[in-house]
Amino acid sequence: MPASFKIPSYMRAIVLHVFDQIESLVVEERPVPRPQAGQVLIRMHAAPINPSDLAFLRGLYKVDKVPPIVPGFEGSGTIVASGGGMLGRVLLGKRVACAAPNDGDGTWAEYMVTPAQNCLPLRRALTLEQGAMLIVNPLTAWSLMEVAKREGHRAIVQTAAASALGKMIVRLGKQRGVRTINLVRREEQAATLRALDADYVLNSADADFEARLFEVCRRESVRLAFDAVAGELAAQVLTAMPEGGRLVFYGALSQHPSMIDPRAFIFEDKRIEGFWLGRTMRRLSLPQRMNMVRHVQQALAQELQTEIQARAPLEEAAKALRQYAQNMSAGKVLLVLESVAAK
Amino acid sequence: MPASFKIPSYMRAIVLHVFDQIESLVVEERPVPRPQAGQVLIRMHAAPINPSDLAFLRGLYKVDKVPPIVPGFEGSGTIVASGGGMLGRVLLGKRVACAAPNDGDGTWAEYMVTPAQNCLPLRRALTLEQGAMLIVNPLTAWSLMEVAKREGHRAIVQTAAASALGKMIVRLGKQRGVRTINLVRREEQAATLRALDADYVLNSADADFEARLFEVCRRESVRLAFDAVAGELAAQVLTAMPEGGRLVFYGALSQHPSMIDPRAFIFEDKRIEGFWLGRTMRRLSLPQRMNMVRHVQQALAQELQTEIQARAPLEEAAKALRQYAQNMSAGKVLLVLESVAAK
Repeated sequence: MPASFKIPSYMRAIVLHVFDQIESLVVEERPVPRPQAGQVLIRMHAAPINPSDLAFLRGLYKVDKVPPIVPGFEGSGTIVASGGGMLGRVLLGKRVACAAPNDGDGTWAEYMVTPAQNCLPLRRALTLEQGAMLIVNPLTAWSLMEVAKREGHRAIVQTAAASALGKMIVRLGKQRGVRTINLVRREEQAATLRALDADYVLNSADADFEARLFEVCRRESVRLAFDAVAGELAAQVLTAMPEGGRLVFYGALSQHPSMIDPRAFIFEDKRIEGFWLGRTMRRLSLPQRMNMVRHVQQALAQELQTEIQARAPLEEAAKALRQYAQNMSAGKVLLVLESVAAK
Repeated sequence: MPASFKIPSYMRAIVLHVFDQIESLVVEERPVPRPQAGQVLIRMHAAPINPSDLAFLRGLYKVDKVPPIVPGFEGSGTIVASGGGMLGRVLLGKRVACAAPNDGDGTWAEYMVTPAQNCLPLRRALTLEQGAMLIVNPLTAWSLMEVAKREGHRAIVQTAAASALGKMIVRLGKQRGVRTINLVRREEQAATLRALDADYVLNSADADFEARLFEVCRRESVRLAFDAVAGELAAQVLTAMPEGGRLVFYGALSQHPSMIDPRAFIFEDKRIEGFWLGRTMRRLSLPQRMNMVRHVQQALAQELQTEIQARAPLEEAAKALRQYAQNMSAGKVLLVLESVAAK
């Protein structure tokens, strides 16, 4: 049996008071929440800032969360209490990667309560820091490439290719023999991907971008696109693919809608759909989910590795957010939530 | 053995010389074409004007046809010569519904050459006039409702609901127990559909249209939409449907693209795809196709009936086009290609 943990009455947490007002993000003293049946309490270790967190802070991410609220969709920590239920009992004392509840406070705090099923126990070889970035990007990259594998695609095209997730797609593609056509918007991002030996790297700022994209997509018969940008770029990618091409939205970094021509769907059998990790995970059976998590943990130090550009304590969250938003492809900024003394 | 037919050397045909210039549409004397291997020659009886013909005349329909060209995607007639091949031999002398070749002259002429597989022999109970409108609308309406049936939908939403095809969908829905939510843009169209006892009729010109569409789609849990309009209406329909809703473009009457929000795809699992009869037919096996055609012929006098607002001889095609374009939901305008004396 694991030892019982000393749990304080109060904790520090980052709290957002008004959507789209970063200045309303403040560090507050709050009561440590108590887990209900099926839930666990996690002493948080670290949590990254992801593009989905930025979208959430702006009020653009569609979840049932109402300010004042603690942001943060993922992180890692140690389970220090269970509200009851078998899974919670099994996990007590374990180091876990964890996702925030759909309708409550998130990971940017010293403690978080979440459903036990949102926690993935970490293999011994992984550090808590690695575990903090196990869910959002690695599971998404893995799931997207599972779609490519299941349907037998030999090449895919992806936008925002220099992101943490984009690089994972490139590495998984190399490992699995799926060629990747990688779209970026700046020359230094192109250089980063060339350093990874990516198959194709196209810069949307180049004058001949559309013509080259069209040519490469036809040459490689690409019929699957992963898009995190939306706006005009998504429409260009859809046009570039040959008959039967399908675009999967998984993000909307441009914050713009896309203009689509119905004739591409009618005459060329083009399709658009969306990917959301929450929905995909819900649809997997428990064995399927465990199998996937096992694979992802094994690949976390290789194909699914994440670069970290900076670490910041909870008090410096606002500064950390600015740093990340200014250069998202330089690596993740990690919020360190557990002081060394508390360990 | 069928008698051999007297085939003249010259015929009259409607010829389009420049896309998007209706005044370039003229009646010409042309040599009667000769069928090659796998093709048949049809003495045409009649051909309708469909929305897809209008789109083709404007240069908006994506086929490999270059002016000067005879328009017309479908019609009916009698097969009077075969260029060789088993199917052509079997069909010789038969009355058929026929589709134009993908890359050559169409049905608006006294004679047409087309692949034998583009011809469907007519049951004895059907007139050549009925057969002239068997392919484009009835086979599309039937195929779309087969999608609804295969996937177990209990309700669908459709735009352009007062069109010939829209009314077929309403009648097939009533026969099969699939509720239809019908969108029109004028009050007289709404009245036409109410006279058919359609389940729901919504007029997009009404002030509360969007709110009502949303309410009805949620109440009926509609997850399948057939859209022939595109533009803003398609986006409204996609928004109105609950999670998992899928929009199938089969036309683009508005001639406008649609603006789509990527978040609807990511968070609500919305999808867009397209339907094109040519592709669907190609993908069916011969037995599947024959089975479908048999059902469609049986329903042609009931669920799949087409109203005719006017008949016009070949010489009056330009006038007939204007009449149809001015009021497409009043019924089809049929070009009569065979004079009574020629029969």
